[in-house]
Amino acid sequence: MENKTLFEKLTDYSDGDYYPFHMPGHKRNSDGSLKNISPYDYDITEIDGFDNLHAPAGILRERMEKASDFYESKKSYYLVNGSTCGILAAISACCHIRSASDKKRDGITKKNKIIMARNSHTAAYNSVLINELDALYVYPDLIEEYGINGGIPPEKIEEILKREKLEGNIASICCVFITSPTYEGIVSDILSISRICRSYNIPLVVDEAHGAHFSMHKDFPISALELGADIVIQSLHKTLPSLTQTAMLHIGKNSPADEREIEKYLRIFQTSSPSYVLMASIDECIDKLMEDTFTPFDRLKGELTEFYSRAEKFTNIKLLEKSIIGKNSVYDFDISKLVIFPRSNQYNGQVLYERLLEKYHLQMEMASLNYVIAMTSVNDTKEGFERLFHALDDIDRGIRLYELPLLKERNYKPVKLSEAVVFSKISDALMKEKEYIDIDKAEGRVGAEFIYIYPPGIPVIAPGEMLSGEILRYLKECIQKGLNVLGLSEDSKQVPVTAESWSSLEFKKLSLYDLF
Amino acid sequence: MENKTLFEKLTDYSDGDYYPFHMPGHKRNSDGSLKNISPYDYDITEIDGFDNLHAPAGILRERMEKASDFYESKKSYYLVNGSTCGILAAISACCHIRSASDKKRDGITKKNKIIMARNSHTAAYNSVLINELDALYVYPDLIEEYGINGGIPPEKIEEILKREKLEGNIASICCVFITSPTYEGIVSDILSISRICRSYNIPLVVDEAHGAHFSMHKDFPISALELGADIVIQSLHKTLPSLTQTAMLHIGKNSPADEREIEKYLRIFQTSSPSYVLMASIDECIDKLMEDTFTPFDRLKGELTEFYSRAEKFTNIKLLEKSIIGKNSVYDFDISKLVIFPRSNQYNGQVLYERLLEKYHLQMEMASLNYVIAMTSVNDTKEGFERLFHALDDIDRGIRLYELPLLKERNYKPVKLSEAVVFSKISDALMKEKEYIDIDKAEGRVGAEFIYIYPPGIPVIAPGEMLSGEILRYLKECIQKGLNVLGLSEDSKQVPVTAESWSSLEFKKLSLYDLF
Repeated sequence: MENKTLFEKLTDYSDGDYYPFHMPGHKRNSDGSLKNISPYDYDITEIDGFDNLHAPAGILRERMEKASDFYESKKSYYLVNGSTCGILAAISACCHIRSASDKKRDGITKKNKIIMARNSHTAAYNSVLINELDALYVYPDLIEEYGINGGIPPEKIEEILKREKLEGNIASICCVFITSPTYEGIVSDILSISRICRSYNIPLVVDEAHGAHFSMHKDFPISALELGADIVIQSLHKTLPSLTQTAMLHIGKNSPADEREIEKYLRIFQTSSPSYVLMASIDECIDKLMEDTFTPFDRLKGELTEFYSRAEKFTNIKLLEKSIIGKNSVYDFDISKLVIFPRSNQYNGQVLYERLLEKYHLQMEMASLNYVIAMTSVNDTKEGFERLFHALDDIDRGIRLYELPLLKERNYKPVKLSEAVVFSKISDALMKEKEYIDIDKAEGRVGAEFIYIYPPGIPVIAPGEMLSGEILRYLKECIQKGLNVLGLSEDSKQVPVTAESWSSLEFKKLSLYDLF
Repeated sequence: MENKTLFEKLTDYSDGDYYPFHMPGHKRNSDGSLKNISPYDYDITEIDGFDNLHAPAGILRERMEKASDFYESKKSYYLVNGSTCGILAAISACCHIRSASDKKRDGITKKNKIIMARNSHTAAYNSVLINELDALYVYPDLIEEYGINGGIPPEKIEEILKREKLEGNIASICCVFITSPTYEGIVSDILSISRICRSYNIPLVVDEAHGAHFSMHKDFPISALELGADIVIQSLHKTLPSLTQTAMLHIGKNSPADEREIEKYLRIFQTSSPSYVLMASIDECIDKLMEDTFTPFDRLKGELTEFYSRAEKFTNIKLLEKSIIGKNSVYDFDISKLVIFPRSNQYNGQVLYERLLEKYHLQMEMASLNYVIAMTSVNDTKEGFERLFHALDDIDRGIRLYELPLLKERNYKPVKLSEAVVFSKISDALMKEKEYIDIDKAEGRVGAEFIYIYPPGIPVIAPGEMLSGEILRYLKECIQKGLNVLGLSEDSKQVPVTAESWSSLEFKKLSLYDLF
């Protein structure tokens, strides 16, 4: 075991020639005043003149108000605990927002249902857990050609809302929650979805963690904030030049969302000692955007356009492209995500990822079964794009030359998320006695923990869901191909399931929505 | 309005001659390898070789295991969302820990009560809120001479446990939660309290946010971890050389606490994109401690001993001292907190704080009505102590010379926290319709929000508590003297109260414990 501290390992990596096609968006390529200043030189606490993030009345308030003007939001907040705390706060606040049916003198009735996209980040599931909500899932369409999730169909959201209203349950729905863009850059039709939500008077919360750069340039997608979403959460560190763990929450200009309720939960889910280094990073990032968005994003767009165009000549490697727009509920596509598919049956995402890392010192953001993602940002260099192109070009020829390890497995067959069968609320399932059993024997049992692949951190199985044969086969394939599967036993051979058998009575209680 | 970014303001402050007697404990005085390296140079994400905080299996696991060996804990965790997330996770986990009365095949019954010190940090109250707990308060003793809270009497905890057991409610208590040391450095008798808790099989959670340097040297107090606490949360940034927002959670060596449950909640309350800059800061801090604790803490102890001894000559300024030990349930006192009391009737904490800042450029950690706190750490310099001594010496003479502003108010009379009368659970009170009314008209009404003074962030009024005349007078005095009172209307003239009147029925439901 090498005996280095984490800091030593980090500076070693930083001194090497590895190029970061991963978060954070600053790409270790900061400029100007931020260069050569140790965080220990400007890390302070809430002393005089430096305000208090949890009750801003001075510089932080001024700066957040300026940011809000820039984003044209009703209110914008700097977050130091990632989009995670923004999602927790947004959903928790929505559970306590007054609806028409709450009689004035009775106070608020806590809402106990959420309509959410099944391909949401684990933070949304955790919000469901701590608020003990029933989740009514909406499933994204599937882009069969690529085996990835498409957009969220607005009509499916409307269908659920209509039925809930018919059954008199509309007042118990806290919000509609969806993720757009996805990790792969797929944008849903937020305009239509927000209109539907508004017509039912249900707030729309959009996890736009991967879209903090939206609305900055005409060739990148429009932000959900502009398209009528009520609460929008963005990870600044993912696609903008800001430090890891920084994010923002925006309340839409015409949103009826109660900002005091949201602020209450932001105070709960963020440390009472927020880092001034992180807050200053957010502030510098926004300040730079306010100065000029056109130049940096136009340069990025130029690099990307050239890259996509040169990549067309590849025989065995294919990139996700704007041509997917208009089908499978895909409303737009973010070209800053390079989603790279090896066409070959013998070549999967993890192998491509490792080859790029080991031979070319290009660190990708993530590998899935059948693709890798390279994240780009305004801080990427021409040299970086060149290196990636030449590496892929090399590999593209290499695939033809059979230089690469042959994997015998069948090509990736996507699992339809819509196959999930929900037996109980997440919070109830987690209270059950559980046991670990072999994956091969788990078919038909009910999951007792979140099982997910990281990244991206979307649960493949949520507690209370049935383990189908298809889901289990998919999990085994992910494990076999070296993906990072979390939530299993230490040796990845067993899955946690609820110990008791589920009575037919409980099965009958299943909501119809969970079975489409 | 000056048009500087937060970063620019921070570097201005850093370039000035203000000396930091406040958090963070690194005092902007980092040495060696951490100097001159921008955080943007080593801020990455969970790429190969750098592990995953939420499922550690590589370097983070190794380093945390090393830290655990050093602390002699069962398990230790690096936290990037402050002690706040540690407290939220510890209490939430305890609500879901199996007790003897949970029948094996029935799963877990969520616990709905907590025994907690009334002088706990807001994070503990937030844990009570989100878990919808009934809080049975234990009140610290009062040190009348200084008007500050003393220790938590172990016998009061035993009294509540005994009664709960007698009434058959013991299985519904999730944990005993106390803060030790307090902001002012007061340490409770953890050994006795942990023995009592163990005998009732109830976990003891200690908020040791201000005691991360405990157990490092014989002249500073012993950590709760050594004294039998089950879960101990420490803010590294407060008293050790680590960046703001960094903390640790330790599970006691012989604690029955379920680490998987704690890990589940740490995953919930911390961002899924933890900052490597923050994690590396924790790691460097622990690494330095592992190398040598004696030298730096012995030097600090030397400086402090000299300071206390020289301060004895002051006529009008008095420091909190070890002589308070042994009375008012004070088990030990942390000399690294300089708690400075002006003796004069004409001179209060806020005035002393401002004088030290404006005339001497010494930034204190906080001002209370009747004292200021200067926080010291191993990174303080001889020059810093000299400057503070000479400033206080100057002021001490100044008080004699009547140079200072005369404030007409009576001297500070402490409010006994034990006067709080609880009408309902925090979570219930927050669901009630609320209204804002003038402070002068609020007596007898029931508070509808947390009202606290920051720092330290202990609620003066929790939702559901009656607003007594004494509490309201205390609040008004704090506002008048310029302390930072949070939770009121914007102009600080109105308090939020529940709109409805409380029926006598509800009053009768009051727990007896809430009335002693």
